[in-house]
Amino acid sequence: MPVEIAVIEGDGIGKEVVPAAVEVLDAVAATGSIGEFEYTYVDAGDAVLAETGEALPEDTYEAAANADATLFGAAGETAADVILPLRDAVGSFVNIRPARAFPGVDAVRSETDVVFLRENTEGVYAGHEDRLSEDLSTLTRVVTSSASRELAEFACDFVEDGRGPDGSEGFTVAHKANVMRETDGRFRDEVLAVAAERGVEADEELMDAFATKLPLDPTQYGVVVCGNLAGDVLSDLAAGLVGGLGLLPSANIGHDNGLFEPVHGTAPDIAGEGVANPTAAILSAAMLVEYFGYVEDGNRIRDAVEAVLTDGPRTGDLGGSATTTEVTEAVVERL
Amino acid sequence: MPVEIAVIEGDGIGKEVVPAAVEVLDAVAATGSIGEFEYTYVDAGDAVLAETGEALPEDTYEAAANADATLFGAAGETAADVILPLRDAVGSFVNIRPARAFPGVDAVRSETDVVFLRENTEGVYAGHEDRLSEDLSTLTRVVTSSASRELAEFACDFVEDGRGPDGSEGFTVAHKANVMRETDGRFRDEVLAVAAERGVEADEELMDAFATKLPLDPTQYGVVVCGNLAGDVLSDLAAGLVGGLGLLPSANIGHDNGLFEPVHGTAPDIAGEGVANPTAAILSAAMLVEYFGYVEDGNRIRDAVEAVLTDGPRTGDLGGSATTTEVTEAVVERL
Ligand SMILES: CC(C)[C@H](C(=O)O)[C@@H](O)C(=O)O
Ligand SMILES: CC(C)[C@H](C(=O)O)[C@@H](O)C(=O)O
Repeated sequence: MPVEIAVIEGDGIGKEVVPAAVEVLDAVAATGSIGEFEYTYVDAGDAVLAETGEALPEDTYEAAANADATLFGAAGETAADVILPLRDAVGSFVNIRPARAFPGVDAVRSETDVVFLRENTEGVYAGHEDRLSEDLSTLTRVVTSSASRELAEFACDFVEDGRGPDGSEGFTVAHKANVMRETDGRFRDEVLAVAAERGVEADEELMDAFATKLPLDPTQYGVVVCGNLAGDVLSDLAAGLVGGLGLLPSANIGHDNGLFEPVHGTAPDIAGEGVANPTAAILSAAMLVEYFGYVEDGNRIRDAVEAVLTDGPRTGDLGGSATTTEVTEAVVERL
Repeated sequence: MPVEIAVIEGDGIGKEVVPAAVEVLDAVAATGSIGEFEYTYVDAGDAVLAETGEALPEDTYEAAANADATLFGAAGETAADVILPLRDAVGSFVNIRPARAFPGVDAVRSETDVVFLRENTEGVYAGHEDRLSEDLSTLTRVVTSSASRELAEFACDFVEDGRGPDGSEGFTVAHKANVMRETDGRFRDEVLAVAAERGVEADEELMDAFATKLPLDPTQYGVVVCGNLAGDVLSDLAAGLVGGLGLLPSANIGHDNGLFEPVHGTAPDIAGEGVANPTAAILSAAMLVEYFGYVEDGNRIRDAVEAVLTDGPRTGDLGGSATTTEVTEAVVERL
């Protein structure tokens, strides 16, 4: 049975980098251990909103929900209206966000090699909001033991399977339990309890202290487990340290489905010119391949991307003048 | 009438750096335009908890509430139990946190020169928390138009008075209104509305994007207005970019009272040895002096500190071997 992939290019450079990632997927399928991929193209984003009145049409949601995995590009103003329901459509409970400096790419901290495991369902994102008066609004932040433990079990598997950065043997849980004592206290306690049950090394860090210490010395951290908003902000900080969002992939993992997306946005300034850097989308495809158990094929893609970054053609964001197609072909050649 | 200052040394190096700051205050009072300072010594922190059963005794709270201003050092495990009620005691609605690289101090990003104006009363810090079931806890995050507007008015004054970093003409409001639409939407809208009413330039940035962009190019930002937790994390990130918390002061401003504290903690590894760096506490005293309108005296302190950092004695954290007393005396000499 072919693996069924829903493909959502979205807005801006999503329309350029997603086809590049699909090309790499096909090349890997043709030469690797994976069978065939079958694609269902659906759409979402600003353009779809303008056309249909909905940023995320029902059939796109359904396609993502019913596929084996979804490859997503980017959405503009409607990003939150698209990406949050899509994470829900695939039943994702963890967002994997690696931040690693790449060869030949300017980085503020080139030693950075950190993987964030971000809780993907609750915190302020489960946010029930109320406008209680002319003056006052509230948001109900939600933390459950079940979601915290599920994330922690995943983190333990991740660490045990050696999927953390080289040399990392446990994880750090980042939180703000000194202020959010009941909610982040529950989160922290459950995550540490699971680690102890599983015999996985784990320590903790306040999220503000983490934000100070990561730029001072990123080698202090390997796998970092956090709540939803903490994961959003701290992983974006790490992205800044490795040179920006441009090259970073991410994976939203569910129980029998996943959503794979570059961390970058729609890049309206260069959209439509065929010069977008496809690296983040291609690396997201690598995470997709790995999700189906083809770890070696995932590594093949990553190695090819690194080789191209080292001495292959480069797009404008990296100081080169290559097109999206040229970079993609260079990656395919080196698979 | 003398200015009445409550002094709370707290734990660890608080007991060393606060006396240093008091020495500088006295030297400035003796030679400057300020009258006299009168000090009331009270205490709080881990040691006080061990002794009295309370981290923040009632008389300490009252002393802070009744003084003209409070100088605070640091607290250990009890930090949150001490600092949050003290901010309340002085009626603080804004926490001013400058992050600037200092001459001769190793910094990841030495161009950093940013001042955070952090909302100091609500957000998750107003956190009403509930344990709703075995599995579920919630926190009610609070945002009011009144607190948002008060912060924004302060930010406009701050910018108009030229208190931002050199060349900054407006401010940036950092928020997460694409997810917390009602609460952070209210915050963002009110802050931008006040800026428009006042004719102060203001733009906005999502807090995750801010965390990526600050390390990439800190010169993009000057004055940054944020909610309580965003201000906590983003200002600590900026601290990491300028070389750590060690040198950074902060001011919690109320309507007729203020609380001034170094951003660093108790540094248990060196506490009691007389080698703590007093710079952050001394710069907090400069913010105190400035708060009473003695802008020139505040600048005198800052200039003296910079001169000492440039070619004076240094404590161990900056690669020197001077004592707290030696550094303090060097600052006093150059006033
Ligand atoms: C678009 C936004 C809702 C989203 C988030 O906050 O999760 C984005 O910042 C991300 O990190 O993928
Ligand atoms: C100790 C803690 C409660 C406090 C805060 O979160 O405000 C600290 O991190 C700070 O920033 O002053």
